[in-house]
Amino acid sequence: MPSGPPPLSRIELVTIGDELLLGFTIDSNAAHIARELAAIGVKVVRRATVGDDTAEIASAVQAALDRTGAVITTGGLGPTSDDLTKPAIAQLFGRSMHVDEAHVLWMEDRWQRRFGRSLPLANRRQAMIPDGARVLENRHGSAPGIWLEDDSGRWVAMLPGVPREMRGMMADVLLPTLAERAMVGGATVVRSRTLRTTGVAESLLADNIDSMDGEPLGASLAYLPSIDGVDLRLTVHDLPPDEADAVIAIAASRLVSRVGGAVYGEQDADLAAIVLELCRSRNDTIGIGESCTGGMLGARLTAIPGSSDVFRGGAVTYHDDLKESLLGVSTDSLARHGAVSEAVVRQMAAGARRIAGASIGLAITGVAGPTGGTEEKPVGTVWIGVDFRGDVHARLLNAWGDRQENRYRATQATLELLRHLLQSPAETAVG
Amino acid sequence: MPSGPPPLSRIELVTIGDELLLGFTIDSNAAHIARELAAIGVKVVRRATVGDDTAEIASAVQAALDRTGAVITTGGLGPTSDDLTKPAIAQLFGRSMHVDEAHVLWMEDRWQRRFGRSLPLANRRQAMIPDGARVLENRHGSAPGIWLEDDSGRWVAMLPGVPREMRGMMADVLLPTLAERAMVGGATVVRSRTLRTTGVAESLLADNIDSMDGEPLGASLAYLPSIDGVDLRLTVHDLPPDEADAVIAIAASRLVSRVGGAVYGEQDADLAAIVLELCRSRNDTIGIGESCTGGMLGARLTAIPGSSDVFRGGAVTYHDDLKESLLGVSTDSLARHGAVSEAVVRQMAAGARRIAGASIGLAITGVAGPTGGTEEKPVGTVWIGVDFRGDVHARLLNAWGDRQENRYRATQATLELLRHLLQSPAETAVG
Repeated sequence: MPSGPPPLSRIELVTIGDELLLGFTIDSNAAHIARELAAIGVKVVRRATVGDDTAEIASAVQAALDRTGAVITTGGLGPTSDDLTKPAIAQLFGRSMHVDEAHVLWMEDRWQRRFGRSLPLANRRQAMIPDGARVLENRHGSAPGIWLEDDSGRWVAMLPGVPREMRGMMADVLLPTLAERAMVGGATVVRSRTLRTTGVAESLLADNIDSMDGEPLGASLAYLPSIDGVDLRLTVHDLPPDEADAVIAIAASRLVSRVGGAVYGEQDADLAAIVLELCRSRNDTIGIGESCTGGMLGARLTAIPGSSDVFRGGAVTYHDDLKESLLGVSTDSLARHGAVSEAVVRQMAAGARRIAGASIGLAITGVAGPTGGTEEKPVGTVWIGVDFRGDVHARLLNAWGDRQENRYRATQATLELLRHLLQSPAETAVG
Repeated sequence: MPSGPPPLSRIELVTIGDELLLGFTIDSNAAHIARELAAIGVKVVRRATVGDDTAEIASAVQAALDRTGAVITTGGLGPTSDDLTKPAIAQLFGRSMHVDEAHVLWMEDRWQRRFGRSLPLANRRQAMIPDGARVLENRHGSAPGIWLEDDSGRWVAMLPGVPREMRGMMADVLLPTLAERAMVGGATVVRSRTLRTTGVAESLLADNIDSMDGEPLGASLAYLPSIDGVDLRLTVHDLPPDEADAVIAIAASRLVSRVGGAVYGEQDADLAAIVLELCRSRNDTIGIGESCTGGMLGARLTAIPGSSDVFRGGAVTYHDDLKESLLGVSTDSLARHGAVSEAVVRQMAAGARRIAGASIGLAITGVAGPTGGTEEKPVGTVWIGVDFRGDVHARLLNAWGDRQENRYRATQATLELLRHLLQSPAETAVG
């Protein structure tokens, strides 16, 4: 049997950049990489973030190599003078740097075609690579990735920090390589499955799940509260792929039986996408009438590719006179009940349905904060309404976050109300 | 002179949670903490992320303590069974745990008042604290923070992982304590200042800045490309506060003189807020007509507190028949030029201004992707329009990101076009 590198199962990430360390940028790359690796059975066991500092980069990468021998870095490959990843790691491996002329030519060509001008000097730096390195092609930008490996099989893969470029390089080049190495030893995998809930507090879910008699879930369970609601994430580790799939399927069905109706989807499902799909299958269409959310509900629905066969449009009526002129809310209702009221949200929902020529109208009006609250209607008071094929349903929310949270939660609650209407037994019988 | 702990200048963060490490949650807490600390002259020198694993938590905290003696952790204080931070760190400090009865009573009272029911069992776990620990009050949730310090002055501050709770605890309790320690030695500070630009590529900005003769900036400069544009961040380290302020002010003015018109704001300024303020000072009001962005522009404008004195509302016209019925776009223009065209965006902008009763109408229509592109109008083709007090201006964008990026860039470009109109010399002379 030929000897090769040991099967890959554990990896560390080192994300690089003053902007990450000082908090000017949020590190979304690390999350993406970890998810992609988990799916091929490779576990990220630690992540370190260091600034644009050659010594810190080298020290963090060295420590990670000593623990796992397998390291992915992001950041510090750009054209500007704060990009130090390549020289720091080349030095760690005792390699010099040289200009990759093929990459210079490729970039020259790209700039001429895209911008009609020659390559800026700053970009030439990106063509410097460590001796003996493999270049990882970057379809989405000008900084190539670098793979550097020593004689004992310890390696570092350097990816760019720009998310789109990093993601493309992961998918095109790095994942196939790593998947091959992971499978060498008949690897075990990490499998996780997330059930998404909204509208029920974390500790109430926990009480429900824990107090049930019956069989254990058979997988570890994490509660992940977020602005969307509470995600319930099941995870199994260190099983062969088939067995892991079976165990997690059983755990998921046991969990669903305990929290049932609160679950609107799985993994990173967006409630807007779930609702669009339900509408699509029932030939329903949606119109909107938004006040305090200012268009956020429409923006969420149209964020979903293909939403145009369900979503038609509507009105943003931040000012009360537009509630009248665009949605047909009565002057009298506004005067008697105020803009944040059940009477007004009902007329907004009906108006949204009518002006959009849709079967469903969605409306939101509330006090998003931070100011504008009164004793009777404090900040976070939001009325939501759904005109469901002519029947108007309204609900009062009492959100208690900041302005953006309150607005987002209002869109989430509106979509959740519509989901329940679309999935109600009567509706299911018809659909 | 009484001896005390050494002045605080360097700190490490350890963020804890399988959800962070496996990439199910993006770590926004770390960025927030780093920014807050920089402002009081404390530098985050490294950040580590580990999973819900007692040994990993202990190992990462120990390594960080060995390097700096000052560690903040987030996460792992919640009521559910995957919360291991307190026991792991208590063990590291050789401390036992006990129930803090005062905290139990406080939580009981809080649950009774807020939910009208008694405390769930799962929440009682949150009242366990290490012997000798100081409890950090949590105004926004039920998990208290913990401060643990040994005889040699090395300390760990444990904060909750829920962003709102963490932020409140930082502001209320931790920052005042740390600021006092940082100032003991007449500390030097980190100061940074960010100039935000949009619409100009990173390497073109770099060529502009580098090729200028003249005095050096005197501060380090980082280029931070994001979906908003490119931020230019100046940073100075290790100077006393007054000197740092002076140096960075000079650097900023030199930088502005080199990139001038591209700068729309500083720090984390939102272009929407900048534009609203410009409108406010000129008594302008805004109406919107959005197609491919589906309400995102309105959502961005209304995300800014106090936007109601400028933003009035408008129409979301995802379907072409609504462009006609709600915004008055002519059937003929739609048929002859298509929905994504200069003719249509001009009529949308004028219609938005009219139906909202505003002085300015903003309109966006485009092919956001991933499908719907043609040879003539590929994905990323977006027309934006501004009806500026009766004069309509239109621009063609060629965005090349994914659907959400293209949509967001369209809102950014629309706001930037309006900013230029509001700040044009003629306008400035009037305003």
